[in-house]
Amino acid sequence: KEFNIDIWNLRKLPNILRTSFWEITVSYVDEGKINEIINIEPGDTSRKNYGIAVDVGTTTISASLIDLNKGERIKTEITFNKQASFGDDIISRIVFAEKKDGLEKLHHVVTETINELILNLSQKHGISLNDITSIVVSGNMTMVHLLLKINPSFLRKEPYIPVANIFPLFKSAEVGLRINPNGILAIIPGGFPYVGGDITSGIIVSGIYKEDDLSLFVDIGTNGEIVVGNKDFLVCCAASAGPCFEGSGVKNGVRAIKGAIEKVKIENNKVHFETIGNEKPIGICGSGYIELIGELFKNGIINRNGVFIIENEKIRDVDGIKEFVIYEDKNERIVITQADIENLIRAKGAIYSAISTILKTLGINKNDIKKFYIAGGFGSHLNIQKAIEIGLFPDLPLDRFKFLGNTSLLGAEGYLLSDEFRNLSKEIIKKLTYIDLSRSPIYMEEYLKSLFIPHTDF
Amino acid sequence: KEFNIDIWNLRKLPNILRTSFWEITVSYVDEGKINEIINIEPGDTSRKNYGIAVDVGTTTISASLIDLNKGERIKTEITFNKQASFGDDIISRIVFAEKKDGLEKLHHVVTETINELILNLSQKHGISLNDITSIVVSGNMTMVHLLLKINPSFLRKEPYIPVANIFPLFKSAEVGLRINPNGILAIIPGGFPYVGGDITSGIIVSGIYKEDDLSLFVDIGTNGEIVVGNKDFLVCCAASAGPCFEGSGVKNGVRAIKGAIEKVKIENNKVHFETIGNEKPIGICGSGYIELIGELFKNGIINRNGVFIIENEKIRDVDGIKEFVIYEDKNERIVITQADIENLIRAKGAIYSAISTILKTLGINKNDIKKFYIAGGFGSHLNIQKAIEIGLFPDLPLDRFKFLGNTSLLGAEGYLLSDEFRNLSKEIIKKLTYIDLSRSPIYMEEYLKSLFIPHTDF
Repeated sequence: KEFNIDIWNLRKLPNILRTSFWEITVSYVDEGKINEIINIEPGDTSRKNYGIAVDVGTTTISASLIDLNKGERIKTEITFNKQASFGDDIISRIVFAEKKDGLEKLHHVVTETINELILNLSQKHGISLNDITSIVVSGNMTMVHLLLKINPSFLRKEPYIPVANIFPLFKSAEVGLRINPNGILAIIPGGFPYVGGDITSGIIVSGIYKEDDLSLFVDIGTNGEIVVGNKDFLVCCAASAGPCFEGSGVKNGVRAIKGAIEKVKIENNKVHFETIGNEKPIGICGSGYIELIGELFKNGIINRNGVFIIENEKIRDVDGIKEFVIYEDKNERIVITQADIENLIRAKGAIYSAISTILKTLGINKNDIKKFYIAGGFGSHLNIQKAIEIGLFPDLPLDRFKFLGNTSLLGAEGYLLSDEFRNLSKEIIKKLTYIDLSRSPIYMEEYLKSLFIPHTDF
Repeated sequence: KEFNIDIWNLRKLPNILRTSFWEITVSYVDEGKINEIINIEPGDTSRKNYGIAVDVGTTTISASLIDLNKGERIKTEITFNKQASFGDDIISRIVFAEKKDGLEKLHHVVTETINELILNLSQKHGISLNDITSIVVSGNMTMVHLLLKINPSFLRKEPYIPVANIFPLFKSAEVGLRINPNGILAIIPGGFPYVGGDITSGIIVSGIYKEDDLSLFVDIGTNGEIVVGNKDFLVCCAASAGPCFEGSGVKNGVRAIKGAIEKVKIENNKVHFETIGNEKPIGICGSGYIELIGELFKNGIINRNGVFIIENEKIRDVDGIKEFVIYEDKNERIVITQADIENLIRAKGAIYSAISTILKTLGINKNDIKKFYIAGGFGSHLNIQKAIEIGLFPDLPLDRFKFLGNTSLLGAEGYLLSDEFRNLSKEIIKKLTYIDLSRSPIYMEEYLKSLFIPHTDF
């Protein structure tokens, strides 16, 4: 194997060799044919060797601090993507990027968001930024373009292609990410404009690419991406769901953090709920909203269209918009509004109709799906039964469903730690094919049918 | 083959592809396994593709502008290395580099010197700096360290090793060289602290590495480097000759440029000379000095020690130092001083004794040397006979000598144009072994014996 060294490390080398009596520690990234030297330190510093894995989502960004020697995650932190102030979804971000200084601003705030996560993680665990030598990013292609400050506008123009599928290694400093100044940034390969390295990650983490059985994988974020396939083929599509399952764009939405309401039961007009960590409630997260919509419907509080149909002391009218109170104390009030319900129904409809469209397009009956993998930033207690009841997922036996958590982030962690993962990711994107829902005659029909609870096919 | 792209070119790519209707020109450097993309331009700009080859000598720097499409040299320019103001030879440069800001200054002026050559060449031939995408540097290891701004002090400290033998590709901008900002800088591999890529070049250009016969190659610059060998082995050494053969450190010394006196004959106390280009004389170049010393000795004007031994109207005394007048008009006077002669004898002695030391060390009789290759920045009319007469070269049949010109520069040109040259250069440095003259018990004895005209063995 060859090693490649840059001029900054080469300049350090002569002095470091002598002052350390020829004992040095070299950090490098193995990228197939050439090992790229990242950092040279005097003495044996090999016990301090860290990496950052990042899932850059449209609405939320998660980062894990990884001990590369132990191959272990130390901690994960999650925050909202500051880009959200420039638009909720991918398309509005691309539109903003086309404005004067738009790309610069979007690039700036996303690197700022990631840098804050890195700084938090390193400070809390007493790790010097200098000892963090690599960072792996998993994300949809728009997020990757914006992070790299590459014009994303051609993602939505024919021939709809990202600037690259397989990205070279970058110097993290070139992209404005603050780890070791010579640190390396790797981007997980991605196949299509709306299906990026996040889905490559999901395919590998779920393992659907190596199964005999037909599986469906769905990653629910602001964009919902779906993959159907097995060891012989992999087909994907993407639909815009909006940010409400991630706790944004809904009145009391929060991410799946401590205090987030993630379980809800309504009995005799009394609301029972559980929060993550059993903390005082601070809002409702995606899995909480799924349960809540199901309970509101089951208790006849909303109709199939999601409209409040009863008078009830828990239903208030605020500035002409009805809302249902989940929790109230002296200082705080947690509610779900009529607008929230409409957003959530549109979101679940977008996901469900994407699932049914891809299955119909491929001529696959839903019952042929032997495994149904769910990924996304939900809380740890996603209630599959409730998700079926509100019409987010098709009605399949419960034992076929498996919730995988944030596979995009898990993929970035895997990519950081495993040669096999890196090689596999390049194979996966060659195997994957794409269905463009916006050009699908089936999709609009399916979408309109799905804007009910659960949906018209139930 | 894989291509590697940097972030700057990647950022340009989406817009360039569309504005040029997908017709682009990609400039890349083929470095074995990976092609490194240097520049992406809209449309077909493949007819504009230039490179710069540079010989960075201790005293003089030469640069050729190369049309990479045609594989042809357009023009060569030569100038003095501005580093000379910080010291004449390698050791004094290293010492200066160890002072505060010394390395920075030496680095600055050498890049400035090269940039001026590049600018001259490009402007005279109407070529945009943007169309110059690569630069290859051949030079001794001290010059390479200083160019790259790498501390050279360990070149003269045990274990006497350069920072690298085979250098990675650099971005020219990282090193401060002004061609296309994404342009690549390649350094010809070099083997030893005082025998660098300039000698790798010389070995390849002379072809001694593939001959059956035993050859000797000598590159005469401020440092004199000698290689002895054939297709089976290659041994080298280096000796400090000082800059006088390159027209520096002698009163009326000039480089081998138009107007330089390169041929001299003295008959009946009359001096006949020829200048390069038959121009009005401006000074004396290396080959001129060699002839001049020989003529002064043959005519009994100096003795074997180089001391003026006759009274003569051409010999003047200026501030206590004698000088011999070669040319005089109303405005100008071209002379050789007693100090010049001493410098020249020391220089020729250093080269000759290095040659005899390497031969004695290897147990080779001078007559076994079937080919004697001479490289250096001499004028085109180096008189071998005269060089033997003054004791610069051993007394061998004249048909064994071949003057090759500046093989360091020719090597840089070859490296720029040929894959084979690049591969060969890496093989050569593995094959080459080094004799350290400063540790050789033979060398000092040989040197003292050589401080005569021609020398005590004659």
